[in-house]
Amino acid sequence: MALKIKRIAIDTHPENTAFLLRRRNGYSPEQFVALRKIEITGGDASILATLALIDDESLLEPHMIGLGEQAFRRLGLPEGAEVTFRQAPVPHSLEHVRRKIDGDELEETEIAEIIRDIAGYRYSPMEIGAFLVACAGFMSTHETLALTRAMAGVGRQMHWPSEIVVDKHCIGGIPGNRTSMIIVPIIAAHGLTMPKTSSRAITSPSGTADTMEVLASVDLPEDRLVSIVAKEHAVLAWGGRVNLSPADDVLITVERPLRIDTFDQMVASILSKKLAAGSTHLLIDIPVGPTAKVRTTREAIRLRKLFEYVGHRLGLVLDIVVTDGSQPVGRGVGPVLEARDVMAVLRNEDDAPRDLRERAVMLAGRVLEFDPALAGGKGYARAMELLGSGAALAAMERLIDAQGRCREVILPGSHVHDICAPAGGTVMSIDCHLIARIARLAGAPMDKGAGIDLLHKVGDRVRADEVLYRIHAHSPTGLEYARELAVASSGYVVG
Amino acid sequence: MALKIKRIAIDTHPENTAFLLRRRNGYSPEQFVALRKIEITGGDASILATLALIDDESLLEPHMIGLGEQAFRRLGLPEGAEVTFRQAPVPHSLEHVRRKIDGDELEETEIAEIIRDIAGYRYSPMEIGAFLVACAGFMSTHETLALTRAMAGVGRQMHWPSEIVVDKHCIGGIPGNRTSMIIVPIIAAHGLTMPKTSSRAITSPSGTADTMEVLASVDLPEDRLVSIVAKEHAVLAWGGRVNLSPADDVLITVERPLRIDTFDQMVASILSKKLAAGSTHLLIDIPVGPTAKVRTTREAIRLRKLFEYVGHRLGLVLDIVVTDGSQPVGRGVGPVLEARDVMAVLRNEDDAPRDLRERAVMLAGRVLEFDPALAGGKGYARAMELLGSGAALAAMERLIDAQGRCREVILPGSHVHDICAPAGGTVMSIDCHLIARIARLAGAPMDKGAGIDLLHKVGDRVRADEVLYRIHAHSPTGLEYARELAVASSGYVVG
Repeated sequence: MALKIKRIAIDTHPENTAFLLRRRNGYSPEQFVALRKIEITGGDASILATLALIDDESLLEPHMIGLGEQAFRRLGLPEGAEVTFRQAPVPHSLEHVRRKIDGDELEETEIAEIIRDIAGYRYSPMEIGAFLVACAGFMSTHETLALTRAMAGVGRQMHWPSEIVVDKHCIGGIPGNRTSMIIVPIIAAHGLTMPKTSSRAITSPSGTADTMEVLASVDLPEDRLVSIVAKEHAVLAWGGRVNLSPADDVLITVERPLRIDTFDQMVASILSKKLAAGSTHLLIDIPVGPTAKVRTTREAIRLRKLFEYVGHRLGLVLDIVVTDGSQPVGRGVGPVLEARDVMAVLRNEDDAPRDLRERAVMLAGRVLEFDPALAGGKGYARAMELLGSGAALAAMERLIDAQGRCREVILPGSHVHDICAPAGGTVMSIDCHLIARIARLAGAPMDKGAGIDLLHKVGDRVRADEVLYRIHAHSPTGLEYARELAVASSGYVVG
Repeated sequence: MALKIKRIAIDTHPENTAFLLRRRNGYSPEQFVALRKIEITGGDASILATLALIDDESLLEPHMIGLGEQAFRRLGLPEGAEVTFRQAPVPHSLEHVRRKIDGDELEETEIAEIIRDIAGYRYSPMEIGAFLVACAGFMSTHETLALTRAMAGVGRQMHWPSEIVVDKHCIGGIPGNRTSMIIVPIIAAHGLTMPKTSSRAITSPSGTADTMEVLASVDLPEDRLVSIVAKEHAVLAWGGRVNLSPADDVLITVERPLRIDTFDQMVASILSKKLAAGSTHLLIDIPVGPTAKVRTTREAIRLRKLFEYVGHRLGLVLDIVVTDGSQPVGRGVGPVLEARDVMAVLRNEDDAPRDLRERAVMLAGRVLEFDPALAGGKGYARAMELLGSGAALAAMERLIDAQGRCREVILPGSHVHDICAPAGGTVMSIDCHLIARIARLAGAPMDKGAGIDLLHKVGDRVRADEVLYRIHAHSPTGLEYARELAVASSGYVVG
């Protein structure tokens, strides 16, 4: 029986929700119960949605089916359009998930089937969670390889005319670590192809896309992205627009709340995206530190081996570098403050953060060595040259103009609070987690100018009451949230 | 800031849902996003609910918070009452779940904390799924014991004046296996205390509570239940009213769709309920058969050992019997047809199903031997005597009257279809799963008279076109659904 669509302005992101009156004739009540999935079809369009039952005819008439915001948008039909629905078939691939729960190793085709269903929104968060937990710690390297291939296979596949397409990825977790925005212009100035798509912050105070957005538009349709790369060799865009790994986009909505970040998922997530983005050569930066994602060199080596196992079998040339992740990089934490640091480095300003500069040049050098002409140790000097000569800055300015220069200048948030040293001494350590949390409470990354300006780093000598860092916020509430945590736990140990 | 409750007639069982306008001032948008949990407090009452965001002010005014049906009922405050809300604190016990995902063994106190939070609706289905999957196949016997104790600890604890309180439980999965309704009157006639609470069908065509409901009321408040037991030694009630294992009630909403039925969960679920129900002596029936829940004797022995390990440490006296689960028991499948069989056995009618009678007497005999006076083999004869003399029937009639005799006589559904033998021969096997599915499609257990009447069992010789079983339904649709499956796969092998 056909029902007419009614849009219901209820947001249940990331899930699709559909609403039906409970008391209708023509379908068995056994079949349609709350929170089950139904499949809604109209014309060529079809979506799966979670069912909520309505008892009140003033909300919905019997001949209607209500669609929440996500469902309405994803189905893409107008209000009043006729649709039919049926109980969603249980995805057959859940049988594979059940076998994985029982401890079996899955075949490549089975993992591919699971990933297709997840990317097609055919799994509930509960079912995704079951798959992820069943895999956590119990994936063979074969399975991780199959997972990576499957995840790359369901999204958009990009192709580039160049033979060498380079990329770099940092495992993350280090506030202020915005090296990509320095590396990309250096590589572009050299002339290698580096179409860099980045994520926005998920749990951090800023992602590369958030920081770049302070300077230029990053939400670029694919055709513009392609034409910018054709002209400038590079781009610094937000990857969310390109749909490179739709399965990863769904998985992450469950990994985050459950805090599942196994090496297997990490490798599959990163390499599947790079593969889909058309990269051929990839530098991976693994920062190691007591408050970083990877805590020991031993762990870093295990992760490196897994990257190599999967990457090589997928035909990627990998260079993996383990770096110091013991404290934040640069001075600024948060989009505006980080963009300031990046531009200071590119402009060769005297007070540009040296650690950010040094790290970016070192990594850019490794990327440059993917160029056969520079292989074997000539990358570093070439990176230095391109940065020092202003060629990298010029490349960055061209990229900014090509992507669309941000007209509005955003300043660091005007509500500030200084966190001072309780006593004189040396900064012994800085907790990356805490600094990130404080910056987020201040409003980063949503409030672009919110964040933290680190005035002292590990090894600096400070006097009692000297300012360790300054919190910036756009609102008094944000400042208060951040101040409260910073006063309780500043993240600095001075000894 | 206080908001006024508005009841919103949307059913999202088993989850609580709350609705807020997205564009309100006074709270940070970062803090309150769709599908996060919030805690709603008014007076002494407090619930957790999943948040959905509304963009349409005609659905909800800015000073209001909408509550879906479950949330409205559980909070228990009237419309217009003032409440406050905050982002629900992430349950600390999720840290233990994460450690379990990482492969750690958990402490008893940690498992207790998890179970308290689950029973308190503080976990999302995704988080419950993560816990269950992390445990599946990776629970130590210590952990299973701790889980059982924790699950028994969060619900209602019943106490009885008798020193010996007996119970029996069948692992299930065998259609028509309604022995409890024969055993309980036998035990009551003997004078042992047997306050039997049963579940309704979840995936089967009838549970003991569904079948008993054909004869008498089973939805008894606790005080009536207690007074009936005081007078009649026994009761045959629905357990859902008594809140014996609220954690189990929540866990099952996730175990069912994920089809997690590990032995650990099974043992914890059953024994925690029996413990909470105040049982001291428990008979467990494990039917083994190719289409039963437990498929091999080897598995049955493993399950028995786990029951014994946990049960003995909880102070329960257990008797565990492995029975034949190769085909349905009795003739009728579905509430009315099963009740007919049960009463035929109690009335000692000539055509009462012999397999049901024999099985019930054997199990009743084992339960009777919990009475020290009958220990060591005298139970069977005593059970025979109580059944044969009509004492069990009289006890059943008293129970029915005490619980409230059902005035309305429900007949088997009048829409019938016969499934016949395709050729002459011997019935070689009957598939329990298929028979259960066909009976459910016919409408059981919701339609009390729907179900299947099995006219032949394994070993019977049949002629071509002789009726193997008759499907009963109350509606043409139900009959059609059931007929369709039965014609495709009858569940009978005649050879």
